[in-house]
Amino acid sequence: MKLQVSIDLVSLEQALNLLKEVAQYVDIIEAGTPLIKQEGLRVVTAFKQAYPDKLIFADMKTMDAGELEAELAFQAGADITTVLAVANDATLSGAIAAAQKYGKSVTADMIGVHDRLQRAKELKQLGIQSLEMHWGLDEQAHHNWDFNELRVIKDTVGIPFAVAGGINETTINQVQATGAEVAAVGGAIYNATSPVEMALRLRSQISALSTV
Amino acid sequence: MKLQVSIDLVSLEQALNLLKEVAQYVDIIEAGTPLIKQEGLRVVTAFKQAYPDKLIFADMKTMDAGELEAELAFQAGADITTVLAVANDATLSGAIAAAQKYGKSVTADMIGVHDRLQRAKELKQLGIQSLEMHWGLDEQAHHNWDFNELRVIKDTVGIPFAVAGGINETTINQVQATGAEVAAVGGAIYNATSPVEMALRLRSQISALSTV
Repeated sequence: MKLQVSIDLVSLEQALNLLKEVAQYVDIIEAGTPLIKQEGLRVVTAFKQAYPDKLIFADMKTMDAGELEAELAFQAGADITTVLAVANDATLSGAIAAAQKYGKSVTADMIGVHDRLQRAKELKQLGIQSLEMHWGLDEQAHHNWDFNELRVIKDTVGIPFAVAGGINETTINQVQATGAEVAAVGGAIYNATSPVEMALRLRSQISALSTV
Repeated sequence: MKLQVSIDLVSLEQALNLLKEVAQYVDIIEAGTPLIKQEGLRVVTAFKQAYPDKLIFADMKTMDAGELEAELAFQAGADITTVLAVANDATLSGAIAAAQKYGKSVTADMIGVHDRLQRAKELKQLGIQSLEMHWGLDEQAHHNWDFNELRVIKDTVGIPFAVAGGINETTINQVQATGAEVAAVGGAIYNATSPVEMALRLRSQISALSTV
């Protein structure tokens, strides 16, 4: 399982300072949605320039203009961009077309989807390469993790997925046990007393469980 | 009815050049979602500085972190920010809290909502001040305008609304007849041979129909 750091800070300078500490322990660097909106896609360009060997994930959360927004993200240096799974199928197809053109990837963010299993099937049919099973910042206070649902979606639909939303030291092993390809961790790292120690501990927990 | 220009160009320079021509004929200047993501919220600041007497509309299309994203938009100079109507109620409530704090306004973008009448009722209950009845760029090829539905929502729920999505010279009178507070026009202005003439013609059509 890959470790992704989700940077929901809102200044590029803060983000780069955090990355100086934690980038060495992660596989994927995520420019969070509020960071992109505040600073623009230059944050993605700055991440790619500073860390060319890491995958750069632009959390665009695209709801419309799928092809245009995905192109903007890829042109800025993103390896992966996100489209909302609740978006119109034409928006998702537009983003997929852009990904094919640039040789990059689109993830559908499942935030706000009511019937996740049904939508996962439809998204696979549309050609989406991976899902982000995501409980939003505003949902986390109310949700209960349902790891079994993730296993059912994985077994039934057979599409790779990331898990995001409140993952920490206590839950990361359960996330890995669902068969997730990626654990995206935000606040548990950037709000930690020592972000670098937390990133190292999360990385070690993943390695300890991995068989490959 | 107010006229809003939706700027879905992707550079601040292009946007400011367009506004030099058309701002005089509009009431509300919208920074489109791709423009905000490409350039960052400095576009909103630039619009407000250049046109302090116009309302500045930040089409944030917020899906998560409602309070944070709305605060970022208001701090940048927006008078109005958007939250997706398909977002979690907690996200909408967070944005409403930020609007109350800053004395500004939140519009719920109805793109992607299946039962618009039901959701409009819920949004009014949550404290949303206005709706944007929106057919997205990716939907416009497929949708049929249903002006009657807008009248039903207006009469039943009694919440002010804007209409957006493919409005042009041919349809703006029908939009006004629904009782919309705002017509948001994008491509019909910025793709016109003469944007300034188109903005003037749209403005004249609205004035000709207005009784106040």
